Amino acid sequence: MTEKFMSMKNLKFTLHSRKGKYSSKTPGFLKDHTPKTIDMILKAAFDLGKKVMHPMFEEMDRFPPVLENGRVHVHEGVRPMLETLGKDGWISAGLPEKWGGEDMPASLMHCIYFIFAAANYSASTFSGLTMGAANLILSFGTKELQDVYLPPMLAGKWQGTMALTEPEAGSSLGDLSCEAMPVEKEQYKICGEKIFISAGDHDGVDNIIHLMLARITGAPEGVKGISLFLVPKFRPESRGSLVENDVTVTQVFHKLGYKGAPITGLRMGENDNCIGYLVGEENKGLAYMFQMMNGARLEVGMGATGIATTAYHSSLEYCRTRHQGRKIAEPKNSEQVAIIQHPDVKRMLLFQRAVSEGALALILQCGMYEDIFTTDPSQTDCHLLLELLTPIAKTYPSEMGILSTSTAIQCFGGYGYCDDFPVEQHFRDMRVHTIHEGTTGIQAMDLLGRKVVAQNGRALMLLKEEILQTAGEARHSAGLDDMADQLVSYVALLEQVTMKIAAMGKNKGMDAYLANATLYLEMFGIIVIAWQWLSMAHAAATKLEQGVPKKTDQLFYEGKIHVATYFYSHELVRVNSISMTLGCETMVTLAIPEACFTD
Amino acid sequence: MTEKFMSMKNLKFTLHSRKGKYSSKTPGFLKDHTPKTIDMILKAAFDLGKKVMHPMFEEMDRFPPVLENGRVHVHEGVRPMLETLGKDGWISAGLPEKWGGEDMPASLMHCIYFIFAAANYSASTFSGLTMGAANLILSFGTKELQDVYLPPMLAGKWQGTMALTEPEAGSSLGDLSCEAMPVEKEQYKICGEKIFISAGDHDGVDNIIHLMLARITGAPEGVKGISLFLVPKFRPESRGSLVENDVTVTQVFHKLGYKGAPITGLRMGENDNCIGYLVGEENKGLAYMFQMMNGARLEVGMGATGIATTAYHSSLEYCRTRHQGRKIAEPKNSEQVAIIQHPDVKRMLLFQRAVSEGALALILQCGMYEDIFTTDPSQTDCHLLLELLTPIAKTYPSEMGILSTSTAIQCFGGYGYCDDFPVEQHFRDMRVHTIHEGTTGIQAMDLLGRKVVAQNGRALMLLKEEILQTAGEARHSAGLDDMADQLVSYVALLEQVTMKIAAMGKNKGMDAYLANATLYLEMFGIIVIAWQWLSMAHAAATKLEQGVPKKTDQLFYEGKIHVATYFYSHELVRVNSISMTLGCETMVTLAIPEACFTD
Repeated sequence: MTEKFMSMKNLKFTLHSRKGKYSSKTPGFLKDHTPKTIDMILKAAFDLGKKVMHPMFEEMDRFPPVLENGRVHVHEGVRPMLETLGKDGWISAGLPEKWGGEDMPASLMHCIYFIFAAANYSASTFSGLTMGAANLILSFGTKELQDVYLPPMLAGKWQGTMALTEPEAGSSLGDLSCEAMPVEKEQYKICGEKIFISAGDHDGVDNIIHLMLARITGAPEGVKGISLFLVPKFRPESRGSLVENDVTVTQVFHKLGYKGAPITGLRMGENDNCIGYLVGEENKGLAYMFQMMNGARLEVGMGATGIATTAYHSSLEYCRTRHQGRKIAEPKNSEQVAIIQHPDVKRMLLFQRAVSEGALALILQCGMYEDIFTTDPSQTDCHLLLELLTPIAKTYPSEMGILSTSTAIQCFGGYGYCDDFPVEQHFRDMRVHTIHEGTTGIQAMDLLGRKVVAQNGRALMLLKEEILQTAGEARHSAGLDDMADQLVSYVALLEQVTMKIAAMGKNKGMDAYLANATLYLEMFGIIVIAWQWLSMAHAAATKLEQGVPKKTDQLFYEGKIHVATYFYSHELVRVNSISMTLGCETMVTLAIPEACFTD
Repeated sequence: MTEKFMSMKNLKFTLHSRKGKYSSKTPGFLKDHTPKTIDMILKAAFDLGKKVMHPMFEEMDRFPPVLENGRVHVHEGVRPMLETLGKDGWISAGLPEKWGGEDMPASLMHCIYFIFAAANYSASTFSGLTMGAANLILSFGTKELQDVYLPPMLAGKWQGTMALTEPEAGSSLGDLSCEAMPVEKEQYKICGEKIFISAGDHDGVDNIIHLMLARITGAPEGVKGISLFLVPKFRPESRGSLVENDVTVTQVFHKLGYKGAPITGLRMGENDNCIGYLVGEENKGLAYMFQMMNGARLEVGMGATGIATTAYHSSLEYCRTRHQGRKIAEPKNSEQVAIIQHPDVKRMLLFQRAVSEGALALILQCGMYEDIFTTDPSQTDCHLLLELLTPIAKTYPSEMGILSTSTAIQCFGGYGYCDDFPVEQHFRDMRVHTIHEGTTGIQAMDLLGRKVVAQNGRALMLLKEEILQTAGEARHSAGLDDMADQLVSYVALLEQVTMKIAAMGKNKGMDAYLANATLYLEMFGIIVIAWQWLSMAHAAATKLEQGVPKKTDQLFYEGKIHVATYFYSHELVRVNSISMTLGCETMVTLAIPEACFTD
């Protein structure tokens, strides 16, 4: 297995080179963290990833969770890992000091999650879920719930989950039917079934705390009748004893990848004895859950980014050490060269960097907006930008990550298809990301149906300003003006296409407006990542202009500019063809009748 | 598991709707097979696929081959399957009557292979490999070798293999070092190692016959010193006894997919007792092997097409039966609809059809050229076209098949990521195809470095004629003239790009000429498939113009035209951006130094 699963140099460069209007206006988005404390935190996270998570990366895949006698057994390394994560304060890091937290900025939390996901994606999800659940309890739960549940969760002793999906309510959440019957104040009897619940049960912790959506008896139909409940596997009784809460594990799903984490089916209330505690107000569950889900969506994007990154580093090491073939100009009897010397292999490495480093930059950009808004809630524009970019930050890494890890396999040739190297596992681990926390199709409708139209399109206008500012700044660096011009013209194209789709929606209705949402999301995503690449190229060029003493640093910055060039010549151009499709008058996906799909 | 793994209606439509200059000039390319006998053959192949291969599709994946005591154990269904394939004449079908064959045209052989691959890809490879090896023995082996080896191979009792790859010689075949020391006339002692040998050993047969490349002691270096040998696992001695031939299985590779077929490492001559028999002349091995390899490359393309097809049918069935969400215009409390009604789901089904049906058409087009040339060897233009299209027919289904099976997973949502449905297996089975029988990068160099430049570009000129003829014919059908115009202009763009690359090669050398070969192959492939789609749309439109009494047939033909429209609006347009990349002056894959890949 490759030792190097991510590059700390690249992570720091990316974190510290945020651009745009807000980065300069609010330099304190990392709060009171100095570069030195940031270094220390990242180093500590890296050590944990390297020593605790990475070593069990392959084993967790080969010996996936098993359901035995109603309990899910996970890899024996999960328990000590969660204890360490709890003890050393990683689970509580983002929380206020009152809860033992560090109030850590989102940007840093994203970096930490990136490191963990690159080290071992499956392992990284356990604590991420607990953090999300803890945040919900902290935001909307009663003091009593907080006092009982938060301490063991933050200590890594209890697992948190997000329990939304049901057999008949996946993408269509409004159709969920899990029922909550009032028993006494804030206590309900829960009855129903959930599926695809990540970390829904396992023996690496002593209790599982489900943040569960259900419908209170008599509640309105659809999304307006959904409430949020805390449903523990074991109810803590007085004097610390734990009592079974009638939550049964119906199955552990066997998956293509992401095998180290147990994804379970659950049945609640089989014996009419499952108690749930209302979190927040009645019928507001979906809104609460979306708070957690937006964070979770960025996390999915970062998970995909982490996997793509480690797959890149695996393939890079292989390409530097594997000798095969010769340069075309060299004599046939010369020694074989390292395959990294072949242009087509460089293309495959460039592509992986373009995707994984671009995605990392975008999510850290989102983190910056999040931090500015958290620090100064009057900065609502930053919140709008975060909201607009979230479906892209979730989808771009997830969709492109499939191709990126596939390309990593290709670098290895036949060996990439075998499990001698971990790269086929990265490919399998990656594939879930376009599905969980809302499929790509759902993200696309979120972008075009909600985010773009909100406040009369203000978010898109703000984004345009951000991009134009980056382009304007980049023009000061020699050699970047062509990229800056291109970016500006593609943003104009995006505006045009958006208006065209809006006009079509007016003429032909919502069906037509949303019919090509997924393609629109793809186009939008490429342009946003191009923005991030120009921003990084500009940061690198600035460093080079200032003079870089170390040769390795110089090569690093030059490399950044090369990858940006690659992105513009190979990836950004794809926007042209997508916009042609979006401009088509005949909308074949609306026109073709279902009955034409028979053979 | 979905019952329907392919559509016979679509296969027949595709087989019988070949277009272009040669299809009309040489109507007899299917030799003396009437539509009725063709139907019978396809029906028999389908029954075999359905009853023998398909039922063990999942089991072969879950219980992959195991190496025990030097022998590879495969699924117990492999032996009876191979016996049936032998007994019923499927392995010998393409051979002359003298060998019990049917002299079956390549077009039909491709259809049969398509059916088998769709039924169970891993299972389909065993006999395909034996057929390829048998063809080599028949073409270049002595009568003695033929008499000894062909009968048990054609009976499905002995397995044939293609043993090329070595640890240090994968894509760089000229570097292979397996040695052959002359012992007596046409007998050599073989010493060396091979890896990634498909069906390199298994207990579903009584003997394994390797068609192996090795270097005769003192032979010239590189590709000019490679000879072809027949190396059996057991040497047949007089009176039918079999004697160990010092071929050791070093390992069975654990793979991402394609698990039912054993891919092995082999060591020859550990005890100085491995005899190989020269096939054909000394030092001509690579040329012989290429004969087999070209066929094998089409087979890889067809394998990928088969897998993409069955994945499509799985997802189609799911999309027709899974209810989730509502049409946007319908009230929120209406019943959930089948997801096939959502435009984005239709897009995913259209994409899969565009890829799998387009790929099928291209390979059958190749089969037609092959059959015309075999029937009438003066038709060398057909041979040129076959040679030109082979790297595309191998690569397009393999590369696009990754996306197509990935899209099939997406149709299932979370269920697609689990092994409750076979679709995740299709995704895994698919991924090998861009690697085996020459990676995509190798195919790209074959296309641009050999096929396009051969005979001063004659093949490309012939292809252009074919495409223009199809476009001209299609214009007679109402509604197809726009597609015809587009196709003509994209062919002109392909010519332009080809000349531009050629000019760049002249100015900057071969390195620059081939640097973007993979992108060129991609662009070429899309245009070729667009040609096939116009051809199919024209055939369907012609049927509709003639009047189609059955409603289901009418919907089928209308569906074909819709998918063609989809291909032109969503896929063909991609050529625009690829051509922009190919037109870039700065070639970043040449410009970036290896040293820039550090972090």
